[in-house]
Amino acid sequence: MQFTSEQRLDNGVLEREFTLGEIPGILWTPESAAPAPLILLGHPPLGLRRMYPRLVTRARQSAAEGFATATIELPGSGDRPRWPAVEQARGDLRRAMEAGEPVSDEIVDALVLPLVARAVPEWQAALDALLALPEIGGPVAYSGGVISIGIRLALVEPRISAAVLFAGSFVPRAMFEEARQITIPLHVLLQWDDEGNDRQAALDLFDAFGSKEKSLHANMGGHTGVPQFAGETAAQFFTRHLS
Amino acid sequence: MQFTSEQRLDNGVLEREFTLGEIPGILWTPESAAPAPLILLGHPPLGLRRMYPRLVTRARQSAAEGFATATIELPGSGDRPRWPAVEQARGDLRRAMEAGEPVSDEIVDALVLPLVARAVPEWQAALDALLALPEIGGPVAYSGGVISIGIRLALVEPRISAAVLFAGSFVPRAMFEEARQITIPLHVLLQWDDEGNDRQAALDLFDAFGSKEKSLHANMGGHTGVPQFAGETAAQFFTRHLS
Repeated sequence: MQFTSEQRLDNGVLEREFTLGEIPGILWTPESAAPAPLILLGHPPLGLRRMYPRLVTRARQSAAEGFATATIELPGSGDRPRWPAVEQARGDLRRAMEAGEPVSDEIVDALVLPLVARAVPEWQAALDALLALPEIGGPVAYSGGVISIGIRLALVEPRISAAVLFAGSFVPRAMFEEARQITIPLHVLLQWDDEGNDRQAALDLFDAFGSKEKSLHANMGGHTGVPQFAGETAAQFFTRHLS
Repeated sequence: MQFTSEQRLDNGVLEREFTLGEIPGILWTPESAAPAPLILLGHPPLGLRRMYPRLVTRARQSAAEGFATATIELPGSGDRPRWPAVEQARGDLRRAMEAGEPVSDEIVDALVLPLVARAVPEWQAALDALLALPEIGGPVAYSGGVISIGIRLALVEPRISAAVLFAGSFVPRAMFEEARQITIPLHVLLQWDDEGNDRQAALDLFDAFGSKEKSLHANMGGHTGVPQFAGETAAQFFTRHLS
């Protein structure tokens, strides 16, 4: 892990860009001296630069609670090499949606399963490197989108002790079986009128999670319209489980 | 409204029992000098004495936020005169559930609609009397169970500016139409595994509410198992809308 730039944000948060091999990422750490618990901040495969405004807002909130936050670029996104197979699946998805056709299981599987298979080991490698830093310590949580990445990470990575998941993307059927095996505390956000999301599938997925502590927080509005108070409630979930 | 007893709870909250005509009730007010916003605390028709431990816990939490809380006995419950028609409907409900039969619309209507029709004007009379007290002022919210009473109150009583509703009781079909007309902010609690509740009906009801700000908070556990953190999140909803 090599730091490539650093800047101090106005509230004292240190923002550092890094590379881990070919993977770019960003780490935000609070001013406090003690090792901070870590939130791995997931996001949709739209590129880190495009997602930056939303990511830094959440990293600032987490820093105010004493948590460090890190994110990495997903394979095939942003400045990383293009990934023809996934771009093909995205094209198929777009065509199906524009034609008003149902999105087939084949399209969802082709879109999501390879991404999960490549992204999860990258998140784990990032976690190895991040936990080796003296300013990071204590429990780790996952937060954010591409819910299937969060599910797989929660299942295979024992260092993740809690997760906030956004029910806002297509979920392959195979992931429901993984969801049943998850036992860590979960806080699931659902935008009730999300234009790009199947509400019933999100409710079925919430029902499938094996965790004894799981909460579903549904709010009004579309995909990017999560209200501010919902972010604050999610922050309290982290405070309960990471502090 | 006549106060019949008063005691000071250990955290400074003043608890006063009162009668309003034949209706018994309880008012809890915080120590603060300024007129306090008011939460009308609903509950299932099991009798105030039986419900007291849960009610006083919530009244104490609300007082800590600076809110007054009041509740009244429902018609046919507790020490109030028995109500044969509703007891008949309760018997029919119990028999249907014990026999494993579906609960018919007729049973639900007979159980809930007369209760709503009598209870809502009583809540409004209590509200008149409570708002005449110098220690009560400012916005009013409804919180609690018998969700159909909360729906009707939210619809017909313009002094109610926000509501926390428990999706945990049978809802007559006619109430869905009333739900569509509600516009105040709503915070709906759903116990995902509530043994006495139809989850799909609760989700349909949440979908029906006309409010632009509405949140559904689903948690694990049965009817009385609402986790403490869910109570805290509901308290924050009141703080946003009553302060």
